[in-house]
Amino acid sequence: MPDIIIGKNHVFEALRAGRAINKILIEKNTSRSSIENILFLCRENKVPIEFVGKDAINRISPSGRNQNIIAIAAVKDYVKLEDILSLPKSKNEPPFFVVLDGIEDPQNLGAILRSAEATGVHGVIIRERRAVGLTEAVGLSSAGAVEYVPVARVSNIAQTLDTLKSRHEMAVWITGIDMQGDKDFRDVDYTGGTVLVIGGEGTGISRLVRAKCDILARIPMKGKITSLNASVAAALVMYEVMRQRDKHI
Amino acid sequence: MPDIIIGKNHVFEALRAGRAINKILIEKNTSRSSIENILFLCRENKVPIEFVGKDAINRISPSGRNQNIIAIAAVKDYVKLEDILSLPKSKNEPPFFVVLDGIEDPQNLGAILRSAEATGVHGVIIRERRAVGLTEAVGLSSAGAVEYVPVARVSNIAQTLDTLKSRHEMAVWITGIDMQGDKDFRDVDYTGGTVLVIGGEGTGISRLVRAKCDILARIPMKGKITSLNASVAAALVMYEVMRQRDKHI
Repeated sequence: MPDIIIGKNHVFEALRAGRAINKILIEKNTSRSSIENILFLCRENKVPIEFVGKDAINRISPSGRNQNIIAIAAVKDYVKLEDILSLPKSKNEPPFFVVLDGIEDPQNLGAILRSAEATGVHGVIIRERRAVGLTEAVGLSSAGAVEYVPVARVSNIAQTLDTLKSRHEMAVWITGIDMQGDKDFRDVDYTGGTVLVIGGEGTGISRLVRAKCDILARIPMKGKITSLNASVAAALVMYEVMRQRDKHI
Repeated sequence: MPDIIIGKNHVFEALRAGRAINKILIEKNTSRSSIENILFLCRENKVPIEFVGKDAINRISPSGRNQNIIAIAAVKDYVKLEDILSLPKSKNEPPFFVVLDGIEDPQNLGAILRSAEATGVHGVIIRERRAVGLTEAVGLSSAGAVEYVPVARVSNIAQTLDTLKSRHEMAVWITGIDMQGDKDFRDVDYTGGTVLVIGGEGTGISRLVRAKCDILARIPMKGKITSLNASVAAALVMYEVMRQRDKHI
């Protein structure tokens, strides 16, 4: 399956077939009426659209036959949030979700999926915009983990955290990993339902999302630099969850 | 300072000035006598040379004025192994060294330097060949850590481990991280002198180096995939060292 889908018809067919699409790039002066059907399916299937300059499209598909529209396919289908939320119960385990608030680097997302798979995370939730999706590069650096960890993509992380909290059949604590957090991450109790929130590489957790966290936990650091690689930070906390739960059993 | 040094004279001057060079690329048909002085300084300063096709050089320096020789400079000077080995004593701490047996990905090395700096590692030892050096990309992904963590580069990792073991003023245990290891990494005692050995991304720890390890420790994994990202694995163990030592004090 190609990673890049080129031209109006192919993009339309891919959308209609329900293929997982990371995003669609459309030249910004394209007449909206000529792509009405595509815009409609994007809305229906919540596929993000970026209106960009012609250069951005030609850089990816230099053939000149792209009709000013290309779609970037996902290497693996996304799952529905609902499907992730029902997993802990079916496995008879306390919920363990990881929420990524804007990871942009494919290698980091791949590494996080690997660690998530290794630590028994039930599902990873990522952001639709200003974040990397399940691209080919992510698939590669996940070393196969993308096949096993369900990933849901949502348009609004803050609202999704509200959804998680409001589910009365499960209680979850939301722990944001933040270098300014007031608690050492190893002093947080993860034996109950746990949602870990990891911020983007440069930006950390966004303000609105931070406000939804029950706990802000920091990872202690001895040196002069002030933050770890995002996939490293995520893995340290995921392994702490696993450690506590294994002891607890 | 440029990352790439182009042409015979500039390469020669950089070597003579003792600049840190990751490697020198020379077109394979270049007459050896015309670059005798460069070859001599490379041997003296242990700078790796790769004899390559013209294409490989032109890809990096397309100017056509490269005279078939370019040097790739390091973003930071390497230190001598001796300088790293004397650090624990001067800090009055049990030794804590990280040895990388063939990390090839700049982003992974950068992330490892970040974690090393954060956990109080005294020095990182890397391999001269088939491994990434302190390139600009490594500097960037280290988020500044490259400035604080001393990095030594050695031609032979197995011999270096022998050197570490033979130093009678300090006793060290050498722990290799290996997915087939017989001990859970959290059950190893790191409160004494500790050398962690991390293998390359695809290949793990090489056979000769593995034979020098006192302990082979594995990181437990619950899922179907069999290995973590190298920088993630390294960080998990470095943080375990820090955790044990902080408790111990």
